[in-house]
Amino acid sequence: MSTIISVETCDVRFPTSQQLDGSDAMNADPDYSAAYVTIGTDASDGLEGHGFVFTIGRGNDVQVAAINALRGHLLGRNTEELLADMGETSRLFMHDSQLRWLGPEKGIMHMAIGAVVNALWDLRAKRAGMPLWQLLSGLSPDEILSLVDFRYLTDALTPAEARDILVRAEPGRAARTAQLREVGYPAYTTSPGWLGYSDEKLARLCREAVAEGFPQIKLKVGSNLDDDRRRLRIARDTVGPDFPLAIDANQRWDVPDAIAWVTALAEFDLAWIEEPTSPDDVLGHAAIARAVAPVRVATGEHCQNRVVFKQMLQADALQVMQIDATRVGGVNENIAHLLLAAKFGVPVCPHAGGVGLCEVVQHLSMFDFVAVSGTMEGRMIEFVDHLHEHFITPTDVRRGRYHAPIAPGAGSEMRAASLDAYRWTGQHTGVTV
Amino acid sequence: MSTIISVETCDVRFPTSQQLDGSDAMNADPDYSAAYVTIGTDASDGLEGHGFVFTIGRGNDVQVAAINALRGHLLGRNTEELLADMGETSRLFMHDSQLRWLGPEKGIMHMAIGAVVNALWDLRAKRAGMPLWQLLSGLSPDEILSLVDFRYLTDALTPAEARDILVRAEPGRAARTAQLREVGYPAYTTSPGWLGYSDEKLARLCREAVAEGFPQIKLKVGSNLDDDRRRLRIARDTVGPDFPLAIDANQRWDVPDAIAWVTALAEFDLAWIEEPTSPDDVLGHAAIARAVAPVRVATGEHCQNRVVFKQMLQADALQVMQIDATRVGGVNENIAHLLLAAKFGVPVCPHAGGVGLCEVVQHLSMFDFVAVSGTMEGRMIEFVDHLHEHFITPTDVRRGRYHAPIAPGAGSEMRAASLDAYRWTGQHTGVTV
Repeated sequence: MSTIISVETCDVRFPTSQQLDGSDAMNADPDYSAAYVTIGTDASDGLEGHGFVFTIGRGNDVQVAAINALRGHLLGRNTEELLADMGETSRLFMHDSQLRWLGPEKGIMHMAIGAVVNALWDLRAKRAGMPLWQLLSGLSPDEILSLVDFRYLTDALTPAEARDILVRAEPGRAARTAQLREVGYPAYTTSPGWLGYSDEKLARLCREAVAEGFPQIKLKVGSNLDDDRRRLRIARDTVGPDFPLAIDANQRWDVPDAIAWVTALAEFDLAWIEEPTSPDDVLGHAAIARAVAPVRVATGEHCQNRVVFKQMLQADALQVMQIDATRVGGVNENIAHLLLAAKFGVPVCPHAGGVGLCEVVQHLSMFDFVAVSGTMEGRMIEFVDHLHEHFITPTDVRRGRYHAPIAPGAGSEMRAASLDAYRWTGQHTGVTV
Repeated sequence: MSTIISVETCDVRFPTSQQLDGSDAMNADPDYSAAYVTIGTDASDGLEGHGFVFTIGRGNDVQVAAINALRGHLLGRNTEELLADMGETSRLFMHDSQLRWLGPEKGIMHMAIGAVVNALWDLRAKRAGMPLWQLLSGLSPDEILSLVDFRYLTDALTPAEARDILVRAEPGRAARTAQLREVGYPAYTTSPGWLGYSDEKLARLCREAVAEGFPQIKLKVGSNLDDDRRRLRIARDTVGPDFPLAIDANQRWDVPDAIAWVTALAEFDLAWIEEPTSPDDVLGHAAIARAVAPVRVATGEHCQNRVVFKQMLQADALQVMQIDATRVGGVNENIAHLLLAAKFGVPVCPHAGGVGLCEVVQHLSMFDFVAVSGTMEGRMIEFVDHLHEHFITPTDVRRGRYHAPIAPGAGSEMRAASLDAYRWTGQHTGVTV
């Protein structure tokens, strides 16, 4: 029996804007940041849970304040009780009727809940001595169902339907776990494609990505059509005619503009167009998807919650679903997303990059492979090669694949030295990444 | 020429949960609160701008922190420049690429922007010596258009279409202003209908509402069907067969439940069903609207932004549009909502109540009547009779109508004594409302 005795937060910001890593049509100068939380107990094992929300700089302090607003739900609580029923624990935060007003289930407060839920999962996985993907993959279908909040979902996915999906996947779990451990999970890379990079750097990084074995490259677009044509021509010439090239507009366009722009780039044989317009626009994405087919529409990194994903699927508005590990209410809500995708037969290709998103989201895709969709077909996890050195268990990406984590936990723990060096004090310390 | 020299915030909370005012199926014990901001300049007129976000208690401190995160965009800026081009000023906050990540355009950060934008409008109206509705109603169509961010709207409403709406309304402005000043704007009341009230109190308040001249009453529903039947029977018997009775489920149901529940209440001849399900569920509201017609679907108080309202209208998901003055990005975004409603021919019946929502939102409906839709037909503003005494210019509601404000400003300024008495210090002071 132990008690939660500390909920410590930290405002961490990396000065990434100095090198235009992460620059795109909507985010000119991101400083990749994390509103970070550490949950401590009085148990003798000394284990802590770590979670965070990824942000891009200003406002990270507000995100930290939102996490602090949840302390009252944690401090003094029995740890084992909270960890044993993570469904109920998640609802404790999510259904706080006063906090709910600030969303509901969207934006800063929702992401804060996600950070805390994920920190508790990290602690539970560490206590179990397993990586999170393995812990989740060992739960029974009913235990998994108990994690999901089906409110607002039942017109598209009932608990019984979700149970069927999980039960169907059960017999193959052991074989798929072995396969995952052996070959890993496919990755694709966005590292070559940032808008701020020179043409030479773009070509060199494309060559390197192909050589490293990545099965797909993604380029940022949407600032200037002529530039996009030139950069896609360079990329296409570098990687050859059959290599999958995706593009990402980061919400730059209105619906008619998106249709016109993507149509104008048709010659480059695009694998998908990502975030063509507002992440809130279900009907807009559906109209774009109809107009630009066979180019697929991918979206989800800014999808606020399961209700929007549900509609995106109902309306056939996306053909590639990009879940994000710190945009929503945590692992529990991500499981709802995976179940929705499985129901509608849509591949999940998670958003990653940022600070620690690769480290965390890989657990969800691996769990999906073992216990939900049961397939890696058409699936891959985004990979961006920066800031991994700040994590205790950085991703192991080789030959275009994420290799399955073996260390206990959710992948979310940052190095103490990194927290110290990049703790925000009102200005960047001048240390470059 | 003056400079903004202060942006002061205050966490104000009223202990309304002690009397179950405001209790509904999702909000059991709200403490009506405001994250309040005062913008001061070095001008000799001594005028300040006041704005706020309405919340229901816990987390109000996070909302205050979000407003504080905008101080850097205000302090030291030239006041006249900001006030002269409120479209550009609004975009300054809205398009901050780092802050945008925290929404985008939804939740705590978006509402914080709304508070600041509204405080600037309050200051501009005070400087002009006019109530806000009158200031807005005196702007030219092109000036009004310049306030609106059309991003993500043009598939449903182009600037040219919006201009046509405004130009069409121009010739009648003077006559409608006179009419508004004479007869006011219709109000309806929710005061009788809170779930926490006894049957006797419900009947008494229904009788009083009819006697006072309100044209409609609204009851909270959704906790228990038998209770709803009993309470609606009491209300219907009290007000008679032809009096409009609306119901409000405060997002309680999934889509199939909403359809079944509202169908089960058909005998009470309902004017509308409000917030039957998640405010994010455009397709869900559309399905409910098709199934429960001729009962109309009303929603919007939790509608996060113009992109969701756009879709609600495109999908015929609502037949009554309930804008809210502090849920979105301020007056500018509310004007986008009014233009969308006018384009689609849907009546706007604003959400009010809470803290100061009546005081603020009346200006928007009155502006809509004078300069946008040009009609009060089928329109009314919600009215809840509490907490008005804390405002410098409380609403003037008599005989079921809001009488047009004449004092300069946006209606958003609270009394200094109220701020002092209800400033949150970690616990309620014991003062009851």
